Amino acid sequence: MTWVTGANGSPYGVTNLPYGVFRTDGREPRIGVRIADQVFDLAAAEAADLVLAGGALSRATLNEFMALGRPQWTAVRQRVTELLTDEAHRAAVQPLLVPLAEVEMLLPFEVADYVDFYSSEHHASNVGQIFRPGQPPLLPNWKHLPIGYHGRAGTVVVSGTPVVRPRGQRATADGPVTGPSVRLDIEAEVGFVVGVPSPLGRPVGVDDFADHVFGVVLVNDWSARDIQAWEYQPLGPFLGKSFATSVAAWVTPLEALGAAFVPAPEQDPPVVDYLRDVPHLGLDLRLTVEWNGERVSEPPFATMYWTPAQQLAHLTVNGASLRTGDLYASGTVSGPERTQVGSFLELTWGGTEPVTVGTQSRTFLADGDTVTIGATAPGPDGTTIALGEVTGTIRPAR
Amino acid sequence: MTWVTGANGSPYGVTNLPYGVFRTDGREPRIGVRIADQVFDLAAAEAADLVLAGGALSRATLNEFMALGRPQWTAVRQRVTELLTDEAHRAAVQPLLVPLAEVEMLLPFEVADYVDFYSSEHHASNVGQIFRPGQPPLLPNWKHLPIGYHGRAGTVVVSGTPVVRPRGQRATADGPVTGPSVRLDIEAEVGFVVGVPSPLGRPVGVDDFADHVFGVVLVNDWSARDIQAWEYQPLGPFLGKSFATSVAAWVTPLEALGAAFVPAPEQDPPVVDYLRDVPHLGLDLRLTVEWNGERVSEPPFATMYWTPAQQLAHLTVNGASLRTGDLYASGTVSGPERTQVGSFLELTWGGTEPVTVGTQSRTFLADGDTVTIGATAPGPDGTTIALGEVTGTIRPAR
Repeated sequence: MTWVTGANGSPYGVTNLPYGVFRTDGREPRIGVRIADQVFDLAAAEAADLVLAGGALSRATLNEFMALGRPQWTAVRQRVTELLTDEAHRAAVQPLLVPLAEVEMLLPFEVADYVDFYSSEHHASNVGQIFRPGQPPLLPNWKHLPIGYHGRAGTVVVSGTPVVRPRGQRATADGPVTGPSVRLDIEAEVGFVVGVPSPLGRPVGVDDFADHVFGVVLVNDWSARDIQAWEYQPLGPFLGKSFATSVAAWVTPLEALGAAFVPAPEQDPPVVDYLRDVPHLGLDLRLTVEWNGERVSEPPFATMYWTPAQQLAHLTVNGASLRTGDLYASGTVSGPERTQVGSFLELTWGGTEPVTVGTQSRTFLADGDTVTIGATAPGPDGTTIALGEVTGTIRPAR
Repeated sequence: MTWVTGANGSPYGVTNLPYGVFRTDGREPRIGVRIADQVFDLAAAEAADLVLAGGALSRATLNEFMALGRPQWTAVRQRVTELLTDEAHRAAVQPLLVPLAEVEMLLPFEVADYVDFYSSEHHASNVGQIFRPGQPPLLPNWKHLPIGYHGRAGTVVVSGTPVVRPRGQRATADGPVTGPSVRLDIEAEVGFVVGVPSPLGRPVGVDDFADHVFGVVLVNDWSARDIQAWEYQPLGPFLGKSFATSVAAWVTPLEALGAAFVPAPEQDPPVVDYLRDVPHLGLDLRLTVEWNGERVSEPPFATMYWTPAQQLAHLTVNGASLRTGDLYASGTVSGPERTQVGSFLELTWGGTEPVTVGTQSRTFLADGDTVTIGATAPGPDGTTIALGEVTGTIRPAR
């Protein structure tokens, strides 16, 4: 129970406490924790000696705090929980709560490298059927390793940032043409944020996941399917993805997700040694996709074939180092049903089966469309917690 | 003519003046310019008011200086040239020259995003013939756009850093196995370093190349061919590349390469509008590849199909922003002859035609092998300048 008005029973209650970076007019960006519809200003709390983190909570990004490691993350979370639950602290803390309506949220961490996986069997199978009809939907390597690639870190933007429709080349019957993308899509994903770095040449094992990963953000990996289709052979997606990737303003710490870990789908064939995680756990995050305010899909993250611990072990098995701020995303989250897919490519089956959004027909995104991805998860003590949403509106091409 | 002993006639003479970051024992990293076999300490020069750059020359990386833009880059280069040529400055500058043998060179810039292109027609054709015999060597998109992908920025290391042989999965007749790579290769490339950033949503045109690009570094994009071959469908290279990418310690400013711009190969079919650069210029950089001290190849950069200005325009046509420290590499540089290829994959034709290196037979890299990539170019005033070499030695897998 917290003394904060409106927080008990809220999906942003005291068992959630995600971290973000905010600004109120004319002041410096600083770190806060969300509680109900308010932001607890941790920079101010640190300045008042209410919470101690060696100054790491008084920076403009979460990176320095995330680099401190799990014992410090736990200590700060415990202290913040104490401040928000013990009436004795109310007088000191209440003045440090800022209404969410009065703040501007900023990118919560400086992104080091951004990696995007492709770990939903349903998504990979759907894409295979759409693009390679009549052939096996999964490629031969897919069940042996979590397929992934590097994306553009410099174009990761915070939720709410408008997305300008990208221009680029696409193939037509008359050869390639250049213009605004005509197949602009979303990918509903879950991102994992690395706090503790690792040295070059030293793989991080599946058991070390919680020592390195600070928390989770929802991700929309905007995708221009026409640009991607023309460019991606043989080196993978490039400009079809690099124009923008949106992340939620709130990073949910792993501690808040303890009750959300559930057995992941069984893997057959068995995986090789470095990918064998015991227990083999995914996360029961229940995503929602809203297109212009209408819910069009509910992707279940618990159905993902590869787990975040396996993704981290794979990412580093070759000796690649981790840096604070590395972001790796799951790949599009799609469940077995058409109402559970994480892309409009799948929702409209390659654009061949339009859907009705409000009163309008859609295959891909129109200018002015807004997409919002949210999620809930089982929280501590029988609560339900919400993950910070990621939203964006399409602006016309320049 | 410079007053620095040994510098007149040197490939690192006063018409070259590449920038790097160095350290001498127990002191802070700082920026220097190479002249012959000495480093001119620009941090000390700035502290002594010999050169003015608002403190940007007194940082641990080139990033702040590179962000200043071309007028400042030109002003600093002119001033450094003056200091090194006018006898009047000798007494003040001489004490700020440090023998190269006494310094440790560090990564010269903090890498923001790393992009790797695939812009040599000879290389792409060779790879096509090796991997897809009997089919057209180039894919249909190749002559319409410069194919590229994002690599891992966090594992870009400075020349001289040992490279640990990566472990990973590779395909065998009995299914995938995990172990040290057995087909470890190089890729001799030329990298372009972005100084001036660009805003999200605003493409950078082919004519704006020199406003954004600060200079050039040689790159060795180490590649584990067996890991790459198994993982790369459908999203491109990942762990086969991400374990290490080496760059030279010296960044050659574009100003030093004015005489090296030459007409690039004619492009047929004609390229689309945003890729049309007039004049269409490549760089006459003459690369050398040494394997355990023996020269095995001389890749000619002037044969590259896509120019660095076209690569930059392509990279941003979708509105992707640039950051200071972005690095984009050309892709493997290979000329038409077997003695001009930039990878051992091509030199040994897929590992089927071993070469003799010293007294030993090689297909791919053995533990202990050292590869050094160098280059020369026509410099100002009829001189020949050298680009800083990039070297690395293979350590056994852990």
